[in-house]
Amino acid sequence: MRIAMLGFGSVGRGIAEAVSEKDLGLSITAVADSRSGIIDADGIDIRDVLERKRTTGLCGTPGITAEDVIESGVYDVLVEVTPTNADSAEPALGYITCALTAGRHVVTSNKGPVALRYDALMQLAVSRNVQLRYEATVCGAIPLIQALEIGLAGNTITALNGVFNGTCNYILTRMTDEGLSYSQALLEARELGYAEADPTYDVKGIDAAIKLVILANSIWGLNVSLDDVDITGIDGLTTDALALAEDLDCTIRLIGEIIPEKRILKVSPRVLSKDHSLVVRDTLNAVTVETDMAGEITLIGRGAGSRETASAIIADILFIRDCYVERT
Amino acid sequence: MRIAMLGFGSVGRGIAEAVSEKDLGLSITAVADSRSGIIDADGIDIRDVLERKRTTGLCGTPGITAEDVIESGVYDVLVEVTPTNADSAEPALGYITCALTAGRHVVTSNKGPVALRYDALMQLAVSRNVQLRYEATVCGAIPLIQALEIGLAGNTITALNGVFNGTCNYILTRMTDEGLSYSQALLEARELGYAEADPTYDVKGIDAAIKLVILANSIWGLNVSLDDVDITGIDGLTTDALALAEDLDCTIRLIGEIIPEKRILKVSPRVLSKDHSLVVRDTLNAVTVETDMAGEITLIGRGAGSRETASAIIADILFIRDCYVERT
Repeated sequence: MRIAMLGFGSVGRGIAEAVSEKDLGLSITAVADSRSGIIDADGIDIRDVLERKRTTGLCGTPGITAEDVIESGVYDVLVEVTPTNADSAEPALGYITCALTAGRHVVTSNKGPVALRYDALMQLAVSRNVQLRYEATVCGAIPLIQALEIGLAGNTITALNGVFNGTCNYILTRMTDEGLSYSQALLEARELGYAEADPTYDVKGIDAAIKLVILANSIWGLNVSLDDVDITGIDGLTTDALALAEDLDCTIRLIGEIIPEKRILKVSPRVLSKDHSLVVRDTLNAVTVETDMAGEITLIGRGAGSRETASAIIADILFIRDCYVERT
Repeated sequence: MRIAMLGFGSVGRGIAEAVSEKDLGLSITAVADSRSGIIDADGIDIRDVLERKRTTGLCGTPGITAEDVIESGVYDVLVEVTPTNADSAEPALGYITCALTAGRHVVTSNKGPVALRYDALMQLAVSRNVQLRYEATVCGAIPLIQALEIGLAGNTITALNGVFNGTCNYILTRMTDEGLSYSQALLEARELGYAEADPTYDVKGIDAAIKLVILANSIWGLNVSLDDVDITGIDGLTTDALALAEDLDCTIRLIGEIIPEKRILKVSPRVLSKDHSLVVRDTLNAVTVETDMAGEITLIGRGAGSRETASAIIADILFIRDCYVERT
């Protein structure tokens, strides 16, 4: 199966490394980063591309663009891993729309298009008889979408609660363990690369809320936007609040919650007993889903990282191949 | 999609109830229990069958057998939910073999055939271009097989550790919480229906070992049998041992472990820190898989129960429909 890839940052390179190291039966035929591109219908030598990117900062030839890659048509699946733009979703939204329109499957880690335009994109995919998959947009390496769609198929999912943001979880873990203040813990998270220079999206709960919107629209068809999420971040949390929780053998975590029947979507710091299954450490993510037949199912794992995101992307690609390409 | 069902105990009835209550697009056309059967190519009225079973103990007409159901041919998927026989796997092995040979998909909760004859059954399924699925054989409602095969596809799974037996986990939880002796906790588990009259398979670790054999053969192709598992049960555990663990802020759980590269399969009581993710309570199951890309992923949920097992069976049926029937 032939892969074209848009975006060649750490996630894109993680996917390229996995495809070149493992015998997955996948061939990469086109790649574009923000300043260059390379297209070869016979398959690109990925080690060359990785080496060029490392030494020059470019994956290919200047002047070859994402649009050129999409229009080349030399691929079965477009892997869209450009940075998320949560306001307009562009340019990723345009890329994905073009590829689906051309009858190509799309796999993305990009939260913007899925959060903002899920219904329209899915209708387009259905009309072209192709798949749009987005496991990597929520909880990184945890196969949550697969579990909700496939592993728990036939169940009614009545509620979902989880830790969706590793940056916040790291900050809260450090505030609890070491008695650090919020700003000290944030500084440490920045130094370790867990928080960005502008941590607003993470610490104010917006990143977690975007993931709730993706789940609400894709799993339950609630047709909601970010405005429908009741959001409180962790930036107002004091060490006193954590110490109070500690006195009760509890701790505080930033929890995202969906109760679909009541259309409740909420992100807020919650006091949880220390032995609660959502009290995970450091940058981990964790999600508990409540169902009518399976009862409660909890999944815990890494919510970010280039290899972790690559894991989700590759699982989506192989699912499309095994269930939709080889069988048709 | 048409379902024929062999076995109409609590799991079979759980499936029937779910199919009749939910709009899943499934039709049950044949059912047999150990003493009777019913076949109707136009679809059976499942509420009638459930009522008859409740009042008479029979699902259908005496004299109609499992063999009659298999030979009727009025089904796309055989759901095989008769009791496990871990020694010969019969009669389930014969039923499954006949249905696969006849070109029918099979979904089973029966550990015997999958533990004893995985390779032969899978080869038969491949030769007939049908699916054999068995999610319900390991960890009940937890979509573990789906996660390993699909959600984490592309990963190398380097190790797996888990709590696979809810009866043992309940006994250990009660010994820890209440200071009960092993025999007191076992008695309580029996009274609550968590342990069978003869609890040997559970407490001696054999049930957990059978699940490791299923995973070892299906996920890694290790071609092992129960004799290859190093098994220690919980029946020798004393309250003193648990008290010693408690002094270290730890507890004891019966852990099944697979390290595929070293062909290590082991079931044994282990001392674990109380905040370890495999320290779950009561009858819960939990599994952590270690992978090369996704890192560690942990899944926690109910390992037994009729609705929980029905959840896994129905997910398998719907997966076959969505990925193998509708697309071919």
